[in-house]
Amino acid sequence: MIVQEQQLRNFTYRIFKSIGCPDADAVLAADVLLSADLRGIDSHGVARLGGYVRLWENGRLNPTPNICVVHETPTTATVDGDGGLGLVVASYAMNIAIEKARQYGSGWVAIRHSNHFGIAAYHALKAIEHDMIGYAMTNASPLVAPTFSSERLLGTNPMCYTFPAGKYPPVVVDMATSAAANGKLEIAQRMNVPIPEGWALTPDGKATTDPNAVTTGGALLPLGSEYNRGSHKGFGLSATVDILSGVLSGANYGPWVPPFVAYLQPLDDQPGKGIGHFVGAMRVDGFRPVADFKANIDQWITRFKNAKRINEQQSVIIPGEPEHQATQHRKEHGIPLVDAVWENLQALAVKLGVEML
Amino acid sequence: MIVQEQQLRNFTYRIFKSIGCPDADAVLAADVLLSADLRGIDSHGVARLGGYVRLWENGRLNPTPNICVVHETPTTATVDGDGGLGLVVASYAMNIAIEKARQYGSGWVAIRHSNHFGIAAYHALKAIEHDMIGYAMTNASPLVAPTFSSERLLGTNPMCYTFPAGKYPPVVVDMATSAAANGKLEIAQRMNVPIPEGWALTPDGKATTDPNAVTTGGALLPLGSEYNRGSHKGFGLSATVDILSGVLSGANYGPWVPPFVAYLQPLDDQPGKGIGHFVGAMRVDGFRPVADFKANIDQWITRFKNAKRINEQQSVIIPGEPEHQATQHRKEHGIPLVDAVWENLQALAVKLGVEML
Repeated sequence: MIVQEQQLRNFTYRIFKSIGCPDADAVLAADVLLSADLRGIDSHGVARLGGYVRLWENGRLNPTPNICVVHETPTTATVDGDGGLGLVVASYAMNIAIEKARQYGSGWVAIRHSNHFGIAAYHALKAIEHDMIGYAMTNASPLVAPTFSSERLLGTNPMCYTFPAGKYPPVVVDMATSAAANGKLEIAQRMNVPIPEGWALTPDGKATTDPNAVTTGGALLPLGSEYNRGSHKGFGLSATVDILSGVLSGANYGPWVPPFVAYLQPLDDQPGKGIGHFVGAMRVDGFRPVADFKANIDQWITRFKNAKRINEQQSVIIPGEPEHQATQHRKEHGIPLVDAVWENLQALAVKLGVEML
Repeated sequence: MIVQEQQLRNFTYRIFKSIGCPDADAVLAADVLLSADLRGIDSHGVARLGGYVRLWENGRLNPTPNICVVHETPTTATVDGDGGLGLVVASYAMNIAIEKARQYGSGWVAIRHSNHFGIAAYHALKAIEHDMIGYAMTNASPLVAPTFSSERLLGTNPMCYTFPAGKYPPVVVDMATSAAANGKLEIAQRMNVPIPEGWALTPDGKATTDPNAVTTGGALLPLGSEYNRGSHKGFGLSATVDILSGVLSGANYGPWVPPFVAYLQPLDDQPGKGIGHFVGAMRVDGFRPVADFKANIDQWITRFKNAKRINEQQSVIIPGEPEHQATQHRKEHGIPLVDAVWENLQALAVKLGVEML
């Protein structure tokens, strides 16, 4: 099923309106989810709409939050999201970071008491419009085991950097800090095929190719997969995301991060509030003239695109390039939805009494 | 051979003095190298002293640089290192970042026209003394191939974050963005043993366990090792370090980064000046009270230390903990030097006419 962008955007807006989001928030939340679908990150777009609604049904999502700054300096701030949609809360925080960067060169905002914020790239890309470098990360439901453990203590904790370019689209490094995103295991589960070694562990810490490893008590592995291939570095990156997002903001961290899926309850004795994010922006012209930076980054991109290939059919991929191409294509030709997602969206419309897709 | 810290520090100071460094710079440069030896990062300590001297002999190191800020905003700056020791230039830049953070909450400094800066952790740890979060990275001689290429276009480009803790030592995430550091290949070469798969490629892009792969035209692999284990993420991280350190500062980047080894000449048509670094600092109390942060990070550390073990003998390692323990031990018991390093240092003393170790 192929759906045009505007049609899917309007539908998503109607769903968010129907759970009580103010108009501007529903527009913004739809924009964040659509950006994922346009960029080809199907796992983080409208496929998650039902998940947000179920959090609301379970009283774990506040559709009319009083988002506010609870602490700040000229270039730093902490935002309390009041249990609102992360899609909206993180956007609010990123606007603050950009405004601080405009005034002082850089701006950094830690966010607590939030929920799932969509793709990190959406927030970090906002900086690009102002010729700034963007930064966004979030902690997430515990699925990943630290090196030497089989216990799920960390989320797939994505980290994103965005850099403006000149004649090329921006460089967008947006990556889970695990070896593989959980969505890749879900695809293997649906297709009933084994996963590559290096993605997951059994509950007793053995390497496995079982696509159901994580749903049966196992864990995802950090980037690097094994200690002798540097999995302690993936653990270190994931820890960095957890500390900046969770500990610095006063949100939860580690195993206490509340699960996105509404059928799992958060742990008792939570040390913080909700899940946490961290976003930032730095003005390029805080370091050198924008035109000089863009000329050099274009040269960087050209050089890497032309790197010697191992396989003649496959060039080096500049981070963010496939997602930029997907966006161009899907804006013109529409967004493909798999049957299960299409049916879930229609069922959601019926349940909430809004016009179907 | 075991050498006491103070003895090795005095010797290192004498060597830097003998190549013309001002007194304060020689003290500082010795401090950076000693911090690596104390922390057990033997590849980055006095073992490199001969390398710095050879750069000086080749006219590629300025012992009396005019280090200066060439551009700034309240929270950002670009420093030109005038070809000086990275050990000194990066320390100068980190002091600026800390001062900006003291005034405005955060400070960020890009550095060009520098040389090898030692261990990233030395610079990022300076922030801890002020209850700030520290950040340091550098680009480096091209040894790593991007995903889908076998061409050496990136350095092992380390990235470091430091976080203050309460009752525990600081959390220090200091990692090369390659699967393995080049020093690990050098150890395997000396021992004439194969390296694990996932560290390096042959010149035509095949997996190899040959410890001489990189010295015979092959390349190191990014963190993740293979595309299906996420090596594009390691490439993305390495690209991030290269862009922040090289492109943002006006230094060289990618294949143009000048080699640390003096027998290799820099490429012609360099787009920038020297090698680049990027450092930063953020005040913890720019986000929340320091005591609250430290209480939570102590809980984070305790929880991860007590994670369920795969092997009863091996607990989860908190990033920075082994280096902290090594420092405690080596301050008391001295620093072990392998024979080859000891002999190189004595030969260096003879050549430069300074008192031997």
